[in-house]
Amino acid sequence: MQASHSDPIHLSFNELRDLLASIFERHGTSAQVAATLADNCAAAQRDGSDSHGVFRIPGYLSSLGSGWVNGRAEPKVEDVAPSFVRVDAGGGFAQPALAAARELLLAKVRESGIALLAIRNSHHFAALWPDVEPFAREGLVALSFVNSMTSVVPHGGHSALFGTNPIAFAAPRGQGDPLVFDLATSAIANGDVQIAAREGKQLPEGFGVDAQGQPTRDPKAILDGGALLPFGGYKGSALSMMVELLAAALTGGNFSFEFDWSGHPGAQTPWTGQLLILIDPDRGASRSFAERCETLIARMAEAGQDRQPGDRRYRQRARAEVEGIALPAGELAKLRALAGL
Amino acid sequence: MQASHSDPIHLSFNELRDLLASIFERHGTSAQVAATLADNCAAAQRDGSDSHGVFRIPGYLSSLGSGWVNGRAEPKVEDVAPSFVRVDAGGGFAQPALAAARELLLAKVRESGIALLAIRNSHHFAALWPDVEPFAREGLVALSFVNSMTSVVPHGGHSALFGTNPIAFAAPRGQGDPLVFDLATSAIANGDVQIAAREGKQLPEGFGVDAQGQPTRDPKAILDGGALLPFGGYKGSALSMMVELLAAALTGGNFSFEFDWSGHPGAQTPWTGQLLILIDPDRGASRSFAERCETLIARMAEAGQDRQPGDRRYRQRARAEVEGIALPAGELAKLRALAGL
Repeated sequence: MQASHSDPIHLSFNELRDLLASIFERHGTSAQVAATLADNCAAAQRDGSDSHGVFRIPGYLSSLGSGWVNGRAEPKVEDVAPSFVRVDAGGGFAQPALAAARELLLAKVRESGIALLAIRNSHHFAALWPDVEPFAREGLVALSFVNSMTSVVPHGGHSALFGTNPIAFAAPRGQGDPLVFDLATSAIANGDVQIAAREGKQLPEGFGVDAQGQPTRDPKAILDGGALLPFGGYKGSALSMMVELLAAALTGGNFSFEFDWSGHPGAQTPWTGQLLILIDPDRGASRSFAERCETLIARMAEAGQDRQPGDRRYRQRARAEVEGIALPAGELAKLRALAGL
Repeated sequence: MQASHSDPIHLSFNELRDLLASIFERHGTSAQVAATLADNCAAAQRDGSDSHGVFRIPGYLSSLGSGWVNGRAEPKVEDVAPSFVRVDAGGGFAQPALAAARELLLAKVRESGIALLAIRNSHHFAALWPDVEPFAREGLVALSFVNSMTSVVPHGGHSALFGTNPIAFAAPRGQGDPLVFDLATSAIANGDVQIAAREGKQLPEGFGVDAQGQPTRDPKAILDGGALLPFGGYKGSALSMMVELLAAALTGGNFSFEFDWSGHPGAQTPWTGQLLILIDPDRGASRSFAERCETLIARMAEAGQDRQPGDRRYRQRARAEVEGIALPAGELAKLRALAGL
């Protein structure tokens, strides 16, 4: 009996991670970079962050194949001050740069109470929450900003300039998994506009403008020379500007509008920068930050917010731990082929 | 010839500041607290931040008169780690607590690259931008969070929990005044709802809910047991939650819903906490952060955003420097009476 092309096959996290690592390594990354990206991508797939799971593999491979991103870059960690670490990612991915600085950064935040990591010359093509969640599991508060590539029009403007520029935050809880959010400062993700265009659907108002800078609900008009709008009007726009300043101007990375990948057909990964701030809440005057976090969440539930940031991912994760990570058989076959299996 | 009650009278900044300081001192603050609050309040009036200018004086005095806030509190600065400063504001105002920690905080950020100030047991009744702008004038990047008092319903909820919880950011520019924003994480300020109610106007959609947690455009229904909505849906709500965690849970201050002022009729100032993060951008890998800031602003202008955050305040400030700060004669007379003049 043969499985149909669309029947789901269930993999363990380790199986999926190892498969993805083989794919990355076969397409030009070092073993270490492959391990880091595979872990990140498998975690997104496991947690139901579909737009940042195996869906991203073709983009990664296309960028690697174009010579635009260096899959073998060795991040250079620079210890510049008691609470300030810089990394030159060497034109490689941001996640290995973060991994390379991690121990130094943890030592600094434990010693100083707060520490900053400034990554530049880096490509971030993943979700941002996997960068912050692990620090909350160490009892730290983490805040990260990454700029991306021009797709968002500044408030009141007519043409795209900012990236979707997400902000991610993680905090330890008294019980259970950390409180984590990861939010784009655009009103909608690029991928969701593409899906709406494919399905012939109109978008809600306030999500984008056309090539003339006029508001439109037509996803095709947004994609065809138009732009996304920031979330929440001028406020989201100000936050997106802040992300450009923190992730690029401060780190020494490119703004979302500065890189030119026209010489690398197939390039898809934005070449920018990333900022990460870690805080040790045990230095604060609360008896237990994590317990205070529980108090807030309990009151949020009483006020009627029954789902907290990160909850959906944790539910998916728990399910995947029992059932495995479901992939359509055809999808898995494609991945295995990319791994040369 | 006598000036009519509504004719504007123009005061210099120093004249207004000194008048306000006399009022504060006469109503129970120490000279130092009076000087700090007067400077802050006069600056808001000068810059056209009308809702945080002399408009706030009755609220300050009412809170002082109720015994709810301690106008003579001596902030206790705690040097807890190489990059972490705490202040117990002693039930007084947040601005004198910030002033007391300022020199230590500046020394730490210069040494460490980043530094954190955690203020607790404090009342913040002012705009947040005056807390961050001065640091950008020293070449630093500043980010601050303050929680306030229950008025905002969490996303998907039915009753108020969060404060209007503003976030303020300041960064130095290559030319001219710093880039500064100060944005409430609520869709609208409480004061603007009160004004709409007084004028009998309907609000746009998405600004508030009634006492049953149902969306309403009626400002009276919002004020009468209803609540404000966060800006930008679930994203603004997540940011408001983050402000509660940073400004209260981390500092050791009260959440916006925790304090009970019912024993102090007339109390108006929220008794919470405030977090401030300073970053020295010279530790980053940009040759000049301030010049990079100029590059971004120039491109924002090209993309059609012709007004940058803070611009309106600076224009008002420049005008006030030439013409003085205009106050209706009746308003000035009231202030002079409060000062016992």
